[in-house]
Amino acid sequence: MSGNTLGTLFTVTSFGESHGPAIGCIVDGCPPGLAICEADIQAELDRRKPGTSRHVTQRREPDTVEILSGVFEGVTTGTPISLLIRNQDQRSKDYGNIADTFRPGHADYAYLQKYGLRDHRGGGRSSARETAVRVAAGAIAKKWLKERHGIVIRACMGALGPIEIPFVSWDEVDGNPFFAPNAAIVPELEAFMDALRKSGDSIGARIDVVASGVPVGWGEPVYGRLDADIAYAMMGINAVKGVEIGAGFKSVAQRGTEHGDEMTPAGFLSNHAGGVLGGISTGQDILASIAIKPTSSIRLERRSIDRAGNPVMVATEGRHDPCVGIRATPIAESMLALVLIDHALRHRAQCGDVRTDTPRIPALAPAGSQRLPSPR
Amino acid sequence: MSGNTLGTLFTVTSFGESHGPAIGCIVDGCPPGLAICEADIQAELDRRKPGTSRHVTQRREPDTVEILSGVFEGVTTGTPISLLIRNQDQRSKDYGNIADTFRPGHADYAYLQKYGLRDHRGGGRSSARETAVRVAAGAIAKKWLKERHGIVIRACMGALGPIEIPFVSWDEVDGNPFFAPNAAIVPELEAFMDALRKSGDSIGARIDVVASGVPVGWGEPVYGRLDADIAYAMMGINAVKGVEIGAGFKSVAQRGTEHGDEMTPAGFLSNHAGGVLGGISTGQDILASIAIKPTSSIRLERRSIDRAGNPVMVATEGRHDPCVGIRATPIAESMLALVLIDHALRHRAQCGDVRTDTPRIPALAPAGSQRLPSPR
Amino acid sequence: MSGNTLGTLFTVTSFGESHGPAIGCIVDGCPPGLAICEADIQAELDRRKPGTSRHVTQRREPDTVEILSGVFEGVTTGTPISLLIRNQDQRSKDYGNIADTFRPGHADYAYLQKYGLRDHRGGGRSSARETAVRVAAGAIAKKWLKERHGIVIRACMGALGPIEIPFVSWDEVDGNPFFAPNAAIVPELEAFMDALRKSGDSIGARIDVVASGVPVGWGEPVYGRLDADIAYAMMGINAVKGVEIGAGFKSVAQRGTEHGDEMTPAGFLSNHAGGVLGGISTGQDILASIAIKPTSSIRLERRSIDRAGNPVMVATEGRHDPCVGIRATPIAESMLALVLIDHALRHRAQCGDVRTDTPRIPALAPAGSQRLPSPR
Amino acid sequence: MSGNTLGTLFTVTSFGESHGPAIGCIVDGCPPGLAICEADIQAELDRRKPGTSRHVTQRREPDTVEILSGVFEGVTTGTPISLLIRNQDQRSKDYGNIADTFRPGHADYAYLQKYGLRDHRGGGRSSARETAVRVAAGAIAKKWLKERHGIVIRACMGALGPIEIPFVSWDEVDGNPFFAPNAAIVPELEAFMDALRKSGDSIGARIDVVASGVPVGWGEPVYGRLDADIAYAMMGINAVKGVEIGAGFKSVAQRGTEHGDEMTPAGFLSNHAGGVLGGISTGQDILASIAIKPTSSIRLERRSIDRAGNPVMVATEGRHDPCVGIRATPIAESMLALVLIDHALRHRAQCGDVRTDTPRIPALAPAGSQRLPSPR
Repeated sequence: MSGNTLGTLFTVTSFGESHGPAIGCIVDGCPPGLAICEADIQAELDRRKPGTSRHVTQRREPDTVEILSGVFEGVTTGTPISLLIRNQDQRSKDYGNIADTFRPGHADYAYLQKYGLRDHRGGGRSSARETAVRVAAGAIAKKWLKERHGIVIRACMGALGPIEIPFVSWDEVDGNPFFAPNAAIVPELEAFMDALRKSGDSIGARIDVVASGVPVGWGEPVYGRLDADIAYAMMGINAVKGVEIGAGFKSVAQRGTEHGDEMTPAGFLSNHAGGVLGGISTGQDILASIAIKPTSSIRLERRSIDRAGNPVMVATEGRHDPCVGIRATPIAESMLALVLIDHALRHRAQCGDVRTDTPRIPALAPAGSQRLPSPR
Repeated sequence: MSGNTLGTLFTVTSFGESHGPAIGCIVDGCPPGLAICEADIQAELDRRKPGTSRHVTQRREPDTVEILSGVFEGVTTGTPISLLIRNQDQRSKDYGNIADTFRPGHADYAYLQKYGLRDHRGGGRSSARETAVRVAAGAIAKKWLKERHGIVIRACMGALGPIEIPFVSWDEVDGNPFFAPNAAIVPELEAFMDALRKSGDSIGARIDVVASGVPVGWGEPVYGRLDADIAYAMMGINAVKGVEIGAGFKSVAQRGTEHGDEMTPAGFLSNHAGGVLGGISTGQDILASIAIKPTSSIRLERRSIDRAGNPVMVATEGRHDPCVGIRATPIAESMLALVLIDHALRHRAQCGDVRTDTPRIPALAPAGSQRLPSPR
Repeated sequence: MSGNTLGTLFTVTSFGESHGPAIGCIVDGCPPGLAICEADIQAELDRRKPGTSRHVTQRREPDTVEILSGVFEGVTTGTPISLLIRNQDQRSKDYGNIADTFRPGHADYAYLQKYGLRDHRGGGRSSARETAVRVAAGAIAKKWLKERHGIVIRACMGALGPIEIPFVSWDEVDGNPFFAPNAAIVPELEAFMDALRKSGDSIGARIDVVASGVPVGWGEPVYGRLDADIAYAMMGINAVKGVEIGAGFKSVAQRGTEHGDEMTPAGFLSNHAGGVLGGISTGQDILASIAIKPTSSIRLERRSIDRAGNPVMVATEGRHDPCVGIRATPIAESMLALVLIDHALRHRAQCGDVRTDTPRIPALAPAGSQRLPSPR
Repeated sequence: MSGNTLGTLFTVTSFGESHGPAIGCIVDGCPPGLAICEADIQAELDRRKPGTSRHVTQRREPDTVEILSGVFEGVTTGTPISLLIRNQDQRSKDYGNIADTFRPGHADYAYLQKYGLRDHRGGGRSSARETAVRVAAGAIAKKWLKERHGIVIRACMGALGPIEIPFVSWDEVDGNPFFAPNAAIVPELEAFMDALRKSGDSIGARIDVVASGVPVGWGEPVYGRLDADIAYAMMGINAVKGVEIGAGFKSVAQRGTEHGDEMTPAGFLSNHAGGVLGGISTGQDILASIAIKPTSSIRLERRSIDRAGNPVMVATEGRHDPCVGIRATPIAESMLALVLIDHALRHRAQCGDVRTDTPRIPALAPAGSQRLPSPR
């Protein structure tokens, strides 16, 4: 499998550099008959696009998507869907000074060593700009999951640097530039970001993602697990350094009597598993959390070397997000959607849409109180 | 890709149930010319096998491996290597009472719902017994990585339940049944486990894994990243609920000036990246940590349902690890080895063994002070 | 994808050398709930096994198959099915003299050059002995296709060397050692083979394969075509040098008015397409033919070289089929079955079991007169 | 693996419909450092493009390719190369009359049955127009194979309908609109085509393809064979119904003493194997032949049905090739190039660029008299 393709049956093959002519992808394996149009995709792209507040990069990219194939008369045909986003606001000259040096904490050095050359303009392929295509592809996945299975996927910021954000309501997420599920805390976040931006430094974040309505039975033991694929997809987002499912690292100190979710005829009594047991969905909410490191491109000077191996001091001009975690929220939703639709199809392949040949146990009603992982 | 195959070029396809006739795997894509014999593999299996101390399951499985193909006159031929381990100490009758009920926190329920039927004996395919084949396959990978590239892969227990284990030395790891890198703490761990076993409950753990000597340049942007594949492999180990690379979740509260590893002609000055930037190895140590949940099969009674949906109380007889994290140490090493050899081959495919067609920057000497992630 | 795995969703991963301890495979992705036992598989293996007549190799291999996993209480569980066949009648000493020379037309030379070493005993991995595992795996595929979709897959010998075999009836195929669909021609075939065996030479053959009852709609444009996958599977059988679908090479001289199969409400009026259009099944019989070269291991002396590059004369002792095409008949059936079940699952993944969301055109009744491709 | 992706390591993922906005592909896994520009690709596209003579479709498509990514300062970077070709001369109204009927011998019926809907304009995804992207991707593969290994890939027309074309010289191939390796026969071909076009009918063809300079050792036993992948790639070209390697179907009547290519210190004495033994290249020329059926879109009326299942007569307007085989020549070259580069990388992954750890036998000089398969 090529390094730029995600998925087994519902696949996304991505291309594009930050400052090249365009970015985009080919979505293959989409079920036929799904109504989709550019506006459906654009709505998701607009949530991620740069320049929407003073807390994110000021690069002005409309991220206008064009569907080049696979949709006929407003409906998917089952053939590959090609999505194209032209780059517009490229100021490559901002990057002239980093052509021969390496930003600490950035992929510059690794790319050059791997390939022997690199497109240094704006990080080239390693730029977070590529994540726009994941959001575009994810919009298709989300729509199918919603229409076919009633699945809803949502993410929010769980922590901005040292500030934990208590979960209040999903309704508050889209009302502030941080995707915080808590309007009351927004002034504190703004003050923090304003000070940070002034300092020239950057900060990490934690994003929490939830999928509700996922049927029991998706996922493949023992290597193609649903949780393993979620971990793969999430760790594949730029700047992610950690992934948790359900109780995550809190499991380390838990006892079996505390962690194992009890079951009753009315449903599960807790969700430490995060909706996955043995690599297979349980029908409970899928819960994932990801740790996002601080942006490596910062204005402050840091020690590094140049291509000849000489010591240099590096500061990064250009327009960067002081907290890439902010715009990661729609990306995380998209990645979860892409994993879920792939497993929906994989499950259907092996086990069929509706299984009538074997006895079924009664479906457990999901407990009403499913919530985000409690703050750590 | 089938759900029981790991890897792209160096692949492991696994089979077997806990209480079936055998478990095993086919390792494909191994480079020819590697000297390997059953004793090489057995040595790794013996580190994981059950029954080696009172703190792990008392099932008596010698885990004797037989090489059925792919090795001729002591050397790999480049054709598939089949490894077979016969099950011996099956007491399936211990499991008669769980055939129709579901253990809280166990895959029982998910398997039955997915497939409409399941092999309930000892957890069947979902049993941690399957991980023996990962260790067997990993032994081949480890040997090649060591001989070809000088790579050393080691893991140790970082926390046993609430007890953090300060890192002292790799030399202490194999001298105690916990794989603790700290002999002085062993009495405390033993006392904890003895009390736990008496209580009938189970506990989680954290394992830290390190690969030293990995060349710069392995990994594929932007979806086939080295860290994404590590996350996939680690989350694919039974009972794992979280994965971190480098600073992991500590990145959330870090600033860019703190997290981004500075470089000098003598090497990197820190390793918050955990040896991976932009999905590509940097030449520093690869650092990963995994959270392992407490065993779901416990003697204490818990609320559950039966196949007919009636409420029942479930307690699990049979022989189980009160802390599956203990035996996970060699498994984590193996999974990292399998990911690394796969990326070694993938890198060689695209970029060649030795690149002479492009200028290279001087290799950075790895800083002498690489250490495990500091305790959290 | 590894070089020893066949299929995308229903996968067969094969191992084993001709004179090693065993051959076998792991079948993954099989739908759960299929009743299967060793006797089902053995029946197919017995059709291929050596030593059943004087016209095939006299090696005595019972080819007894053991199911090691994936079947519980007589039914597939959806987990990997491991099949093991121990080698028994190995006379490796017969091959001592070919360890350092290359048989003309054999893979000896290519293997040694590829890997730098080879298991020379009986051809090692390149031996047709490996095809037993395809037949074993194919037995599972055949049974599912029959039970789920009513598909019947049959093959027969279409030509033995220069002798064309006019098709009479499928009923005659299993009544003679040549799988000839024509009892009357058997004496001629026997006389031909007796003379050939006496001469020490070998001969080619053509096998025709037919799948009846395949639903319309299986196959994936434009690279994952059903016919392309059939070509891949057939050309992957040892000694195959050509593959045709439907009219095959006769299409070259045909006009559009002759080749294009007309349709009426009662069905298609001909089947030059061989049941595949645009890479997708049409509901007509799938028709394929394969050309099998004469065995390269012959008793007659031929010019070759040794490992040092010196000229030598090579004659092959050991027990070989003078016409490998004879035993290829069940192999060809199995390969077609493996391709079809894989596409059955792939189609179900993308398009679902039963499509109720789009209007359907009336199913065309297959024309009653579907027949094998007429002799060339 | 998705149905629109070709290859394992060097992958081509294709999109686009005949009358949609554009066609194109993403080429992933290309080695870095290859000098490539749009003109290199355009040169190959111009050989395939429509409208170059009166014997092919008169659709006017300049097939201008744009490179959107993966090339920086004229050199491949190792990241995905996106190629875009905008459609220009769409006369979709020509196809209004086939929206509700099925052309005999065309994919119309199969697509509709598979997906429940289809883009009927010009055949949509099933149109041969898609093959332009194969030629574009193949141009990159060809250039790398030439520069890195000195491999030359050429194809020519071997038969036009009933007219066998004796091979004279590769030099004559590009001097006539038929890609005939024989200038003297061109008037006969022109007369045949003129009469055919006047009649409204279409005709089949045979294309022969040769790769010279392929190193010994490429290909993977036993399912990922080089010849199996060639068969897959060739049968995946629109309208192909048969594939031969080396002696192909002539092998059926050959004896082992005739077919098996003898070896001497100076090289092989014949090439019935077509350069592949046991699925691995031998260092001889790779020889393949493909049978191409007559175009199904013809002006003559034929019996068919409509979407409601009623009998209708169908004649196809629009602009079609009376012999799709003519323009298939560059496509066949491209497909062979794509298979070879993929196996070049796969071989390098497992066995390394240069093997110094095992003794090598002397390379056999290829015999001087390598030729195309003799006419049948």
